[in-house]
Amino acid sequence: MSASFPERVKVVEVNPRDGLHEGPFVPTDTKIAFIDKLTDAGLAHIEVTSFVSPSWVPQLADNSAVFEGINQKPGVVYSALVPNMVGLEHALKAKVKHIAVFTAASETFNKRNTNASIKESIQRFKPVCETALNAGMMVRGYVSTCFGCPYTGPVIPAKVAEVAQMLMDIGVTELSLGDTNGVAVPNKVHEVLELILKRIPAEQIAVHFHDTHSRALANVSAALQMGIRTVDSSAGGLGGCPYSPGASGNLATEDLVAMLHGMDIETGVDLEKLMECSLFMEAELGRELPSRHLKAVRCAKPTS
Amino acid sequence: MSASFPERVKVVEVNPRDGLHEGPFVPTDTKIAFIDKLTDAGLAHIEVTSFVSPSWVPQLADNSAVFEGINQKPGVVYSALVPNMVGLEHALKAKVKHIAVFTAASETFNKRNTNASIKESIQRFKPVCETALNAGMMVRGYVSTCFGCPYTGPVIPAKVAEVAQMLMDIGVTELSLGDTNGVAVPNKVHEVLELILKRIPAEQIAVHFHDTHSRALANVSAALQMGIRTVDSSAGGLGGCPYSPGASGNLATEDLVAMLHGMDIETGVDLEKLMECSLFMEAELGRELPSRHLKAVRCAKPTS
Repeated sequence: MSASFPERVKVVEVNPRDGLHEGPFVPTDTKIAFIDKLTDAGLAHIEVTSFVSPSWVPQLADNSAVFEGINQKPGVVYSALVPNMVGLEHALKAKVKHIAVFTAASETFNKRNTNASIKESIQRFKPVCETALNAGMMVRGYVSTCFGCPYTGPVIPAKVAEVAQMLMDIGVTELSLGDTNGVAVPNKVHEVLELILKRIPAEQIAVHFHDTHSRALANVSAALQMGIRTVDSSAGGLGGCPYSPGASGNLATEDLVAMLHGMDIETGVDLEKLMECSLFMEAELGRELPSRHLKAVRCAKPTS
Repeated sequence: MSASFPERVKVVEVNPRDGLHEGPFVPTDTKIAFIDKLTDAGLAHIEVTSFVSPSWVPQLADNSAVFEGINQKPGVVYSALVPNMVGLEHALKAKVKHIAVFTAASETFNKRNTNASIKESIQRFKPVCETALNAGMMVRGYVSTCFGCPYTGPVIPAKVAEVAQMLMDIGVTELSLGDTNGVAVPNKVHEVLELILKRIPAEQIAVHFHDTHSRALANVSAALQMGIRTVDSSAGGLGGCPYSPGASGNLATEDLVAMLHGMDIETGVDLEKLMECSLFMEAELGRELPSRHLKAVRCAKPTS
């Protein structure tokens, strides 16, 4: 088994977008300082913001100012979520080079989340991808509810593979398979990936697990064994999905990186600096973030 | 990978001993009601109490009363921790049929935890095992700090294998390999088990992971892939180790069972009834227990 674990994993830090798009508005300067700290902690890819309508997500209404304010380190990917052509125009103006679009493997979830069928969302993203690719951008495609839907329950792997292929067909350069309500389990991760890897190379696939039921790292481990080398997570474990009842808990980047380093897998991330990023955001939000590694280190400090 | 997962896993519920041996004294009747509820929830093995000196663990001073008060369902194992011959005598009087002894793979940890070297603890357990086995008892042997020591750091797999063999040599019928401070990772689990399985059959080995860093289920998954079929956990995730700075979080039985059932692995446990056990103990203790599955179900209830 151990032979199949990689030497290196790329961590995609989604906190600034997936964490801060809900809850109170975090001041623009704080967001910029936070992202610069994440850069300094060695993250290879940071999802910075979302170019959605400010009436929809007022928390990220400062998207352009944040994108233009951060220090972009060469070699690091700074991306933004884009829901439509209007969003893409704003992203282009802010000189974004890497965007992300999003759909789901569950019709019901996609309709409740974006008010569109899966096919309609793909149709909407087609010109977005075309324009973005022509402008030299990279395009990540998120597929939510790959392992279950909070409204309708089980999602069949064939449906995930079908939606993944639809995104590849409109030109996305990387897929991120999301476990929106944290219901994935290792053998189902194996099953879904086995099907998708028949048509899409592992290099183009990322996994995005939620730690809602404390099994995100079990699923990461299963995905690594299947050849996946890119994993999404959120500093401190901030954020989940506001549309998914009871779903909380993005996998915490600390928990992910601590496990990978324990396995002698390189990430390029400085774990101490990463925890400082989360403590910075905890101070801003005035509450403890759910990362268990962060909590263990915090608990250990006074007595060890 | 999925081919190596089992059809069935035996869950060893340690909450009544490993959870309730720290914190406030829980009344005897409440303990008995709790254990009877755990029996009703379908647990195959329940660690009921500890026959240690009441001056050392006053929380379990009612060990005999609890053991004699519970309803013992045929086919279910009810065990108790026994530190020495005095404890064994009390256990024999209470008609305990399954005891557990405990040592560690780290000298420093064992000395701080039990004031004895590993060899001294094995010497102390030798007559305990002999007497217990002669009385027809089963004997479980715990090995703490199999993946790291909270005081001295890394523990080499050869040392774990050596201590495991010492326990087998004095006659223990089942080993439980403990990750006291939650630092195990899947490839190290593989490494330790590979070594131990050269001499001890998988049927005699259980794993006892802590979810301190949110990776207990990743390690369970790795252990299952190695042929292990017995996993320790604590309802609600109560308890850890009071001697280990910063270490908290036994793997929650709900989190374990929810994952196993999601993988179509049978446990015999009724997850709904199990959560009722944890809610019963939460009401008694006046605080939320750390299980993430329990929390997700609790959060989902008002809105779904």
